[in-house]
Amino acid sequence: MSDNHWLQQTETPFLLIDEAKYQRNVDRLFKRVEGLGSKVRPHLKTLRSPEAARYLLRTNDSPATVSTLAEAEGFSKAGYTNLLYAVGIAPQKLARVARLINQGINMHILLDSPEQALAVSEFAHRHNVTFSVFIEVDCDGHRGGLPPRSDALTELATLVEGNGAVLTGLMAHAGESYSCRTDEQIRQAARNECEAIRTAAERVRALGIACPILSVGATPTAHFAEELEGIAEVRAGVFTCFDLVMKNVGVCSTDDIAISVVASVIGHNREKNWVFIDAGWMALSRDRGTAAGPVDYGYGLVCDINGKPLNVCVTTTNQEHGIIALPPDGGLTADDFPVGMRVRILPNHACAAASMHQEYQVLQAGEDAPLVWHRITGW
Amino acid sequence: MSDNHWLQQTETPFLLIDEAKYQRNVDRLFKRVEGLGSKVRPHLKTLRSPEAARYLLRTNDSPATVSTLAEAEGFSKAGYTNLLYAVGIAPQKLARVARLINQGINMHILLDSPEQALAVSEFAHRHNVTFSVFIEVDCDGHRGGLPPRSDALTELATLVEGNGAVLTGLMAHAGESYSCRTDEQIRQAARNECEAIRTAAERVRALGIACPILSVGATPTAHFAEELEGIAEVRAGVFTCFDLVMKNVGVCSTDDIAISVVASVIGHNREKNWVFIDAGWMALSRDRGTAAGPVDYGYGLVCDINGKPLNVCVTTTNQEHGIIALPPDGGLTADDFPVGMRVRILPNHACAAASMHQEYQVLQAGEDAPLVWHRITGW
Repeated sequence: MSDNHWLQQTETPFLLIDEAKYQRNVDRLFKRVEGLGSKVRPHLKTLRSPEAARYLLRTNDSPATVSTLAEAEGFSKAGYTNLLYAVGIAPQKLARVARLINQGINMHILLDSPEQALAVSEFAHRHNVTFSVFIEVDCDGHRGGLPPRSDALTELATLVEGNGAVLTGLMAHAGESYSCRTDEQIRQAARNECEAIRTAAERVRALGIACPILSVGATPTAHFAEELEGIAEVRAGVFTCFDLVMKNVGVCSTDDIAISVVASVIGHNREKNWVFIDAGWMALSRDRGTAAGPVDYGYGLVCDINGKPLNVCVTTTNQEHGIIALPPDGGLTADDFPVGMRVRILPNHACAAASMHQEYQVLQAGEDAPLVWHRITGW
Repeated sequence: MSDNHWLQQTETPFLLIDEAKYQRNVDRLFKRVEGLGSKVRPHLKTLRSPEAARYLLRTNDSPATVSTLAEAEGFSKAGYTNLLYAVGIAPQKLARVARLINQGINMHILLDSPEQALAVSEFAHRHNVTFSVFIEVDCDGHRGGLPPRSDALTELATLVEGNGAVLTGLMAHAGESYSCRTDEQIRQAARNECEAIRTAAERVRALGIACPILSVGATPTAHFAEELEGIAEVRAGVFTCFDLVMKNVGVCSTDDIAISVVASVIGHNREKNWVFIDAGWMALSRDRGTAAGPVDYGYGLVCDINGKPLNVCVTTTNQEHGIIALPPDGGLTADDFPVGMRVRILPNHACAAASMHQEYQVLQAGEDAPLVWHRITGW
């Protein structure tokens, strides 16, 4: 890897993807989920990049998940046609959704309230379009969605189906699984996620509504589910890159993390044993997702340029400065980080770190120049 | 302001600048600093926008500060010629600096170590260019810089001056002033910042090195300095927009905050009294700068669409979801936030919130369409 002299020459800071690890992470989840008889509907929000999506979507109509309409538009322009916008729909966004439908995109929207269903129905009738809808089911009180045994759920299903819309599916997201501390807790979260969606489906289908697609998923539960009976698809996003939060949850090892920020040493405070680098929160993000975890990695774990962890962290960030406060007994001194030396920082949260960059440099084994992947920006 | 129907129609989330408040904030600091006989060298890192800079830079050679070479290149393309890159120089960045110098830009770099000075000297001699250098002086142990009374400082000044470089000035930044809790603490930080730089200058000038420009500044000290004797210029950045961190420090009121994120309500959890909006950390940033302050605003203070604070905060964020957990005794219920309603969120940290957006919508009094300001991205 030291052959890649561009790693030493590209202007810092920049975001680096290790293609081999990325591919390995993709293969691991697809193999697992397909082995359980289901399909992956990958969430593209982490990198928001058509080039990165090609590793995940084998055909143009492979299912995918997005978090913004900007992504839906960007990925549809790149040729992908089966997109679930997995954030509750705001009525004012329906016009953009309808434009995508009219372009032939198999575009699905998400909702969990009669207000949204009525807005959909009204827009559909006024503009002669039919929406494909998922209803969000709440499996763990993490965020939105309706309880699987609630009357509100069946009432909403009735309101949606045939009323300017087709109820294509039900969706649950075990967001609380990010706080799990043991494998057994994640397995339990996965069972619970599947159970909630199957309970919800049984009640909706008893009304004569097919709602064919049951969709579950979060990176932890996707990796620990033991069975996916009746579950058509599993959503996960951060699994492609992994990060220190996922390491803390126990879903990956440090060596699996395919994403890092490359930075240069720009100075020292020798009295305090501080090393300054040119990656602050603009390059690393303000995410402190490991602060409450079993290991607090500050703003990221410092590795050498070849990716070997040095067991020190970026402890403080300003906009364009990072500070590595060397621990007094860690065996490293400022002299180990001369001005101009380059380091790789593994981030707390891949989605947040990637969001600070408009493009990513991709390290390919055996190639002496990087690939460049581009991010779809905005909303 | 309710006449601005575009505020209700532009796709959410988006970043909004209130031009009248922005202008008022600019006028306030310029009047203050110029009244004390100094000049403002505004830090352009907050919005990184040429359109926004026009309110700050009266002529093309007005002094300005930047935090990246991407800004230096972008602002020089916009016509501005006097730029201080106020992050310690990495030797590999000298080629880009030299290109700007060769284009006629009065470009200043910052350093605080012999390693950097030697790299500058070597590059200068090899490429026949002369660099304009500021040495960073440490006034409060916040980050980089050399102590004003240190031998290292005078040795470095000697190493820089005439050695492929001109020592144009000394720079101090009272970064610790962001943690002040009383006006008197900030006044003390301002006195200390000026004192450090004057002490350093006296020692350097005793060597026969002119180092004409003494540069100090941080938004709090710039607003509380009582005298600026001998100080050529004051740097400040976030003062144009202000934010909740600056409100906590006591430098501005909530009403002075010129920046907000406009979001739409997309759902509720009525049992928990939660309101969901379509602004998560992608729109607001992960900055939690008020977490340790006198008032913790979560991920931002929620206002109505006209900017009136509603005294509730965004309490949790995911990538594209914000949750406003309504306090049980706050007098507001989910019914006060119907689906589709728009709110404005005042951010913790203006620089961080702006960094998540590629453009800003600018509200102008008496105009029924927004101005759009564009952000210079990348490094």
